[in-house]
Amino acid sequence: MSLPHPATEQLDLAIILAALGDPTRLSIVAHLARNEAEPLTCGQFLDLGSKTNISYHLAKLREAGVTRTEAVGTSRLISLRRADLERRFPGLLDSILASAKTLSP
Amino acid sequence: MSLPHPATEQLDLAIILAALGDPTRLSIVAHLARNEAEPLTCGQFLDLGSKTNISYHLAKLREAGVTRTEAVGTSRLISLRRADLERRFPGLLDSILASAKTLSP
Repeated sequence: MSLPHPATEQLDLAIILAALGDPTRLSIVAHLARNEAEPLTCGQFLDLGSKTNISYHLAKLREAGVTRTEAVGTSRLISLRRADLERRFPGLLDSILASAKTLSP
Repeated sequence: MSLPHPATEQLDLAIILAALGDPTRLSIVAHLARNEAEPLTCGQFLDLGSKTNISYHLAKLREAGVTRTEAVGTSRLISLRRADLERRFPGLLDSILASAKTLSP
């Protein structure tokens, strides 16, 4: 069963900024951006918060269309929707990631 | 008496994105960006919401450091803190404004 994700043309700027307007979610996205070669599992974010807390933040990011969550067997694989975001809002994600980088050099 | 504003070095990415993660506040910022030659008064945003509503959103933007509010006599003049934002997070504001523009051509 696949989780709901907004289509690319439905991506909403205010919703995306609100989803990214949280330090834990910014860290999750920065972590995903540094590891784009393969999707990550929820467990790989547990240094950022409790399992319940991370699940909540991952749902927020998925619902906003920032990330994709795929259920594969018993695990969930999380990836950044970079191409979709880039198509809808060119340059936005990179600019936010660059700003996030200035915070944690 | 002047209202409190965060210093440039205190500007926080998550707080700024959260402040911009709202359609009314995005519209206010886009409007300020189109009229940067002179500060605007609260009254110039009343097509975006009630006076109470706009006051609330302007306070959120000021507290996040996105805008500056100056009390001049009985009016409040609102301006975008473009130079401060640019110094702290180069390119971020323009990229968000460009994305906002794709929404309302």
